[in-house]
Amino acid sequence: MISVQQASATILSHLYKPALETVHIQESVGKVLAEAITADRDLPPFHRVTMDGIALRFETWKLGKRKFRIESIQAAGEPQKKLGDPENVIEVMTGAMLPAGTDTVIRYEDLVVESPHVTIANDQIELSQSVHRQGQDAKKDEVLLSPGIVLSPAEIALLASVGKAEVKVYGHPRTAIVASGDELVPIQDVPLPHQIRRSNTYAIEAAMRTMGWKGEQFHLPDEKTVLKNALEKILKEFDVIILSGGVSQGKFDFIPAVMEEIGVKKVFHQVSQRPGKPFWFGVSASGKVVFALPGNPVSTFMCFYRYIKPWLLKSLGIEGKTEQAILAKDFSFPPKLTYFLQVSVQNENGKIMAYPDAGGGSGDFANLKKIDGFLELPLERSEFKAGEAFPFIPFRL
Amino acid sequence: MISVQQASATILSHLYKPALETVHIQESVGKVLAEAITADRDLPPFHRVTMDGIALRFETWKLGKRKFRIESIQAAGEPQKKLGDPENVIEVMTGAMLPAGTDTVIRYEDLVVESPHVTIANDQIELSQSVHRQGQDAKKDEVLLSPGIVLSPAEIALLASVGKAEVKVYGHPRTAIVASGDELVPIQDVPLPHQIRRSNTYAIEAAMRTMGWKGEQFHLPDEKTVLKNALEKILKEFDVIILSGGVSQGKFDFIPAVMEEIGVKKVFHQVSQRPGKPFWFGVSASGKVVFALPGNPVSTFMCFYRYIKPWLLKSLGIEGKTEQAILAKDFSFPPKLTYFLQVSVQNENGKIMAYPDAGGGSGDFANLKKIDGFLELPLERSEFKAGEAFPFIPFRL
Repeated sequence: MISVQQASATILSHLYKPALETVHIQESVGKVLAEAITADRDLPPFHRVTMDGIALRFETWKLGKRKFRIESIQAAGEPQKKLGDPENVIEVMTGAMLPAGTDTVIRYEDLVVESPHVTIANDQIELSQSVHRQGQDAKKDEVLLSPGIVLSPAEIALLASVGKAEVKVYGHPRTAIVASGDELVPIQDVPLPHQIRRSNTYAIEAAMRTMGWKGEQFHLPDEKTVLKNALEKILKEFDVIILSGGVSQGKFDFIPAVMEEIGVKKVFHQVSQRPGKPFWFGVSASGKVVFALPGNPVSTFMCFYRYIKPWLLKSLGIEGKTEQAILAKDFSFPPKLTYFLQVSVQNENGKIMAYPDAGGGSGDFANLKKIDGFLELPLERSEFKAGEAFPFIPFRL
Repeated sequence: MISVQQASATILSHLYKPALETVHIQESVGKVLAEAITADRDLPPFHRVTMDGIALRFETWKLGKRKFRIESIQAAGEPQKKLGDPENVIEVMTGAMLPAGTDTVIRYEDLVVESPHVTIANDQIELSQSVHRQGQDAKKDEVLLSPGIVLSPAEIALLASVGKAEVKVYGHPRTAIVASGDELVPIQDVPLPHQIRRSNTYAIEAAMRTMGWKGEQFHLPDEKTVLKNALEKILKEFDVIILSGGVSQGKFDFIPAVMEEIGVKKVFHQVSQRPGKPFWFGVSASGKVVFALPGNPVSTFMCFYRYIKPWLLKSLGIEGKTEQAILAKDFSFPPKLTYFLQVSVQNENGKIMAYPDAGGGSGDFANLKKIDGFLELPLERSEFKAGEAFPFIPFRL
């Protein structure tokens, strides 16, 4: 039996090598950037007016002139105009190029306009005010975004700014999600008294979808030959297999043995944690990985978020941040196991407070309703005090 | 000019009435539940074994018996068996029904098995241990999930458990995202020196997509008649219009006037905030809403997250949580405006610390690279101290 830290480090040393995909910018949100994005010109590309008003030569104002003649209008989207007489001004609109021969903009709020003249009603004028200067944000050819970042809406806008209608991103692994267990029936069916519906694979697939990752679900019986043949075929067609069930010490828990037979070597079996102790992890000769999670619903769920999610992120080049939350009440857990405590969290004045949920002890999804995630309480200790911070693994949207 | 609080309350009093949609469970992650979900039977539906081992009658153990004969095996997925002789035990597998005539499970770790006999090697046995009792999580017909919650992976697993292959969710409004501004060109084009590419509508669409909300993009010129005709048509076909640009005081900012002409009444224009002061909001006779955001990229972005996102969530029945973050450095902002400060955040021992970014002052997306969201600093004050918590509006994935 290995520790949570050993299990995690081992998994993160068997990464998937992602393929490159080209997607349209509108499909790219949430994906991981796989190319460097550079500025195709200065940003902004010209001295840009940021307020509606007038543009003038600062020097003229500095010499005491306050009333000016409006010579012309510079609209946004027009080629740059030029101030003919340095004693005049040009009316300018937000987004327009700053006219040649001017360097400063004064907004309407500080003007009295009596066309074709204008008088400045504010003495607080600074050189270059209300001008967003060419290249102020970035110079042409400067790297704006580097590979390995998640594309959020702000980055997508930046892609649009530099004309990246198509963008290279890292592809997700082809992933099979496999449930085993003769007690499971499809969700459309009405179960017999001794059966339950298959819910774990739906939980895993939904968790994957929140990361833009797709999977295909399978259900295999607790019958060794059938299991073996099916898994052999799945291993050929997919990069990753996530199994739920069949790894305990039960008479019909064939997964570890079957895996060895189809060439997937055990890397570890059993982790000193609760829930999720029977967790099994293996790697095939060609480097494909198999996560065999315990069939208990909450174990399956916890193992996905604690191990598989960081594995995918790191495979795509993202170093996951460790979130922390503050235990809100004293808690005790004597066994020598890392305990993943079910908590609901509240943001209280910027502090993430984690409340243990007493009702959250059972292993079924019905109990996760009010739970926001797991607090990871270290194996070395058994008493945990209110006010201490621990790693927090959230699973809510 | 109205305050941020007034603007927000006004917007939240003009909600969209969502339509019901039925989606497959696998498409439901992130959607908002529109029906009550009840348990179709007890959860768990039977006394379920939670460890591999043996099941016995607790009373027999209590009377001192430690060595038993294994009578049969109860596998998961098998109809319930019955203990014939109360002095015997039945071998049981995780997920199986607890055999009739037994009440307690002892796991293999606490047993010495010498088939067909077994000896208990642990004296700490409790009645009903390792049994997840029928109905412990929920009783038949109990409401498990109520309308107005976002479906996270845990809820989707619960839907699967109770056989909801199809689920009713609230539909998003048909939404047009409209850019105006003659300086804007499509992202595929190479702009002339006085032009820039249209990025705001991509930012808005991407932000909407992170909420599962789809929009259609339009680009209209700064020409009043063309604007009017196009917007009139758009207003007929969509439930909501989000505009970017054309609401400042410039000569070509026709939006407010055009809106009145096509029957969209101004509810407010200008909010005492920076950025985003020229924000305009209107409502049509039939209750359709129009958000006209300033064209400055960061203003557009901030207004979406501060006003439009909560409006959608509340329309779908979700009361948005106010996140808070702790200012990490003193900050000063003298103007009498609510200031949306660009910050990067770090989780430090469970505290969300917000670092103002000095480079984040300009209005372009290029500056948002290291920014995680906006800290909302109230208008009434101009000095903000390190350690104080303020509302935080995150925009990162």
